[in-house]
Amino acid sequence: MSPIDALVRSLPDGRVLTDPDVVGSYARDRTFVEPGKPLGAVLAATREDVVTTMRWASEHRVPVVPRGAGTGLAGGATAGDGSVILSLARMTAIRELSPADEIAVVEPGVITADLDRAAREHGLMYAPDPSSYEISTIGGNLATNAGGLRCVKYGVTRDSALGLEVVLADGRVLNTGRRTMKGVTGYDLTGLFVGSEGTLGVITSATVRLRRAPAAPPATFAAEFGSLRDAGAAVSAIVAAGCQPSLMELLDRATLEAIDDWRNIGLEPATKAMLIGQSDASDSQAAIERMERLCAENGASFVAVSSSPQETEELIGLRRMAYHAKERLGACLVEDVCVPRSALPGMIGAIEDVAARHDVRIATVAHAGDGNLHPVFIFEHGTAEPPAEVWAAADEVFTKALEFGGTLTGEHGVGLLKRRWLALESGPVAEEVQRGVKAVFDPLGILNPGKAI
Amino acid sequence: MSPIDALVRSLPDGRVLTDPDVVGSYARDRTFVEPGKPLGAVLAATREDVVTTMRWASEHRVPVVPRGAGTGLAGGATAGDGSVILSLARMTAIRELSPADEIAVVEPGVITADLDRAAREHGLMYAPDPSSYEISTIGGNLATNAGGLRCVKYGVTRDSALGLEVVLADGRVLNTGRRTMKGVTGYDLTGLFVGSEGTLGVITSATVRLRRAPAAPPATFAAEFGSLRDAGAAVSAIVAAGCQPSLMELLDRATLEAIDDWRNIGLEPATKAMLIGQSDASDSQAAIERMERLCAENGASFVAVSSSPQETEELIGLRRMAYHAKERLGACLVEDVCVPRSALPGMIGAIEDVAARHDVRIATVAHAGDGNLHPVFIFEHGTAEPPAEVWAAADEVFTKALEFGGTLTGEHGVGLLKRRWLALESGPVAEEVQRGVKAVFDPLGILNPGKAI
Repeated sequence: MSPIDALVRSLPDGRVLTDPDVVGSYARDRTFVEPGKPLGAVLAATREDVVTTMRWASEHRVPVVPRGAGTGLAGGATAGDGSVILSLARMTAIRELSPADEIAVVEPGVITADLDRAAREHGLMYAPDPSSYEISTIGGNLATNAGGLRCVKYGVTRDSALGLEVVLADGRVLNTGRRTMKGVTGYDLTGLFVGSEGTLGVITSATVRLRRAPAAPPATFAAEFGSLRDAGAAVSAIVAAGCQPSLMELLDRATLEAIDDWRNIGLEPATKAMLIGQSDASDSQAAIERMERLCAENGASFVAVSSSPQETEELIGLRRMAYHAKERLGACLVEDVCVPRSALPGMIGAIEDVAARHDVRIATVAHAGDGNLHPVFIFEHGTAEPPAEVWAAADEVFTKALEFGGTLTGEHGVGLLKRRWLALESGPVAEEVQRGVKAVFDPLGILNPGKAI
Repeated sequence: MSPIDALVRSLPDGRVLTDPDVVGSYARDRTFVEPGKPLGAVLAATREDVVTTMRWASEHRVPVVPRGAGTGLAGGATAGDGSVILSLARMTAIRELSPADEIAVVEPGVITADLDRAAREHGLMYAPDPSSYEISTIGGNLATNAGGLRCVKYGVTRDSALGLEVVLADGRVLNTGRRTMKGVTGYDLTGLFVGSEGTLGVITSATVRLRRAPAAPPATFAAEFGSLRDAGAAVSAIVAAGCQPSLMELLDRATLEAIDDWRNIGLEPATKAMLIGQSDASDSQAAIERMERLCAENGASFVAVSSSPQETEELIGLRRMAYHAKERLGACLVEDVCVPRSALPGMIGAIEDVAARHDVRIATVAHAGDGNLHPVFIFEHGTAEPPAEVWAAADEVFTKALEFGGTLTGEHGVGLLKRRWLALESGPVAEEVQRGVKAVFDPLGILNPGKAI
């Protein structure tokens, strides 16, 4: 009996897919990266399915590629030849939601926005909100330590993770963390698994922190600028003035054009950048007025405050559709550099400069309050690999981000796509130590090999 | 030449103390735990001193006990026979403070409150504030992942740690983390070192996050209750109402008596508990009034809002002196359980019950908004070990906390004192994994052996 047949027999009926076409649809994430030929895909429904799969994988030394909804942007869930895909997307139970303790216990396949909506029924919210939150899963968010729009105020996924249930490479079940707001018993294994991109274990349950939802709807503004640098200066001024926005997103001309091309938003020729800001503080109107004024002082050609929740939703919707709009125009290499806040205008200038010199199409959005920029390199659809000038331009963007004291990836993860630049940031001691940590959890190297570190 | 002589020669003059009496004063923390006889104490002034010490220790297989100010409450810095103490208290430079990036780069010996004051000159603050923050160091706070009074709103030390420079057991220098608000390159080694109690490496520099200081001074209330359970119910009501206090501290009758005995605060016979709450939100007055009302509704016999910054400081000062007041009454075993927020009243009741049944003197303060309680078991000064009934009572308190879904230690760390209960909380898989992680960083087991895990 072949190993994959043994796996099919050891799991309940229907859990393992082996038809290559069907398996292929589980083998890629949102990037252009072409997967290999995996042996099959397990659609786990229970923790026991995961335990069985990992025991089998250890026995047969088969690489396992865990995945959520496959919305990743770094090739982290791309499956290679001879691997088995382990999808957690069917484990969708919210096992517990305790308003009194402000926590929820969830399975990894829960859609992020669904958890947020469930929490809001109790006056709470689940704060982390990657742009993909209507289609991405909590498990995937944990695996990549996903950020999002609100994290300028509420932090990233790790800041909401209190405890995990993890199946290790050999099938042992590890419980990390706690149900309490604080706790320092033992090493921070929860934090270690968050952002480890499926290379240390498979998360089968998470205890997450909920927060009080703001009492009133947030106040929102949008400002248009004649240059990207002016918009960057406005962001720095807003941060320095202590306005504490709950969201502050920057869209460049190329992004606005992509959106306009799709949804016709009546983009003015002189508009080179748009800044969308939000405050959910109890004095949100006053905060928004201060931000509006700072935009005007920094050269905004137009500033408007949203007058209704519906208008706000449309405005934020624009931002959330930015990536889809770009995908219509070509294949996308999405980068994710993060720089110290004060370096935002400089980094924006550097990206513009790189695009011009290499004659590469780059459309940039930024979680501007965090200094986290997503320059998206757009190239021809159907190309297996980005052309040489795109790699060269990306290389310069990374180098520049590191020169500014920044990092290669603010929230998407390293995956496959950023490994070629890893040594630039980490250095040899960190790489050695990380390989050592990996070996503790996965001595056979079967968990998502070739990713993250 | 003896190993210690070799160390003396390899470091600059005056760095190594060997007089047993002087060394003894560096060998203990704030607990009753008697240290052993260390070989000496290194007073490191530079990273190079730390590298030299660790290389020497690896060569000679000498245990190293890193320490900050020795304000720990779990025996984490207690030095054993034949060890060398490595004090970081002289590394006191704030190397950088960037208001634009809202970060600081500090050496481990910086006193926590000094960093906070330096930040406030720029309209910023360093949020973590353990009760000891006027005497404890950032390095010690990082080693224990210290909490504090403000962490009900701003999180614990880990939430403010962005990056570290760490000297490993063999003298290699590891840089973790970043200067940016977000970043997911590689595993979260920063989070792993925070709270590892000197068992994985020696922190020689930290990049920490600063936050905007509130524009106005906080508003503060104090409420007195005729029973501890009423006070606990008021806390639950305040949390459930979403008042988001920036501080919420509970003091029981025994604690109030200890303070009254020392500073004569005019304690009323009927007062069994006091709750002190603060809001630093922009609508702090309204928030305080809501909290005041909820105290009254839950049986408070007296509620007062502080009318001046001076009065506020006195009130918070009361809370910060609670531990010193208890130390006057006897030797103290300080516990640090943390329970889910809704379990606070139940846990308070359990502590009262345990004290009565074992006839043990327990004085409790709590960071009530976090569910983090410090029952302090007071016994006769000069006793080497707590008497049997104290251990028995502590044992029941821990067991009860775990039954409530809580943890052994919310912010003080495991140190020496809580290792006897560790297995109850962690379980065998977590213990195995943690030993594996420890071995990656410290294969010879020379870093603070016998602590934390």
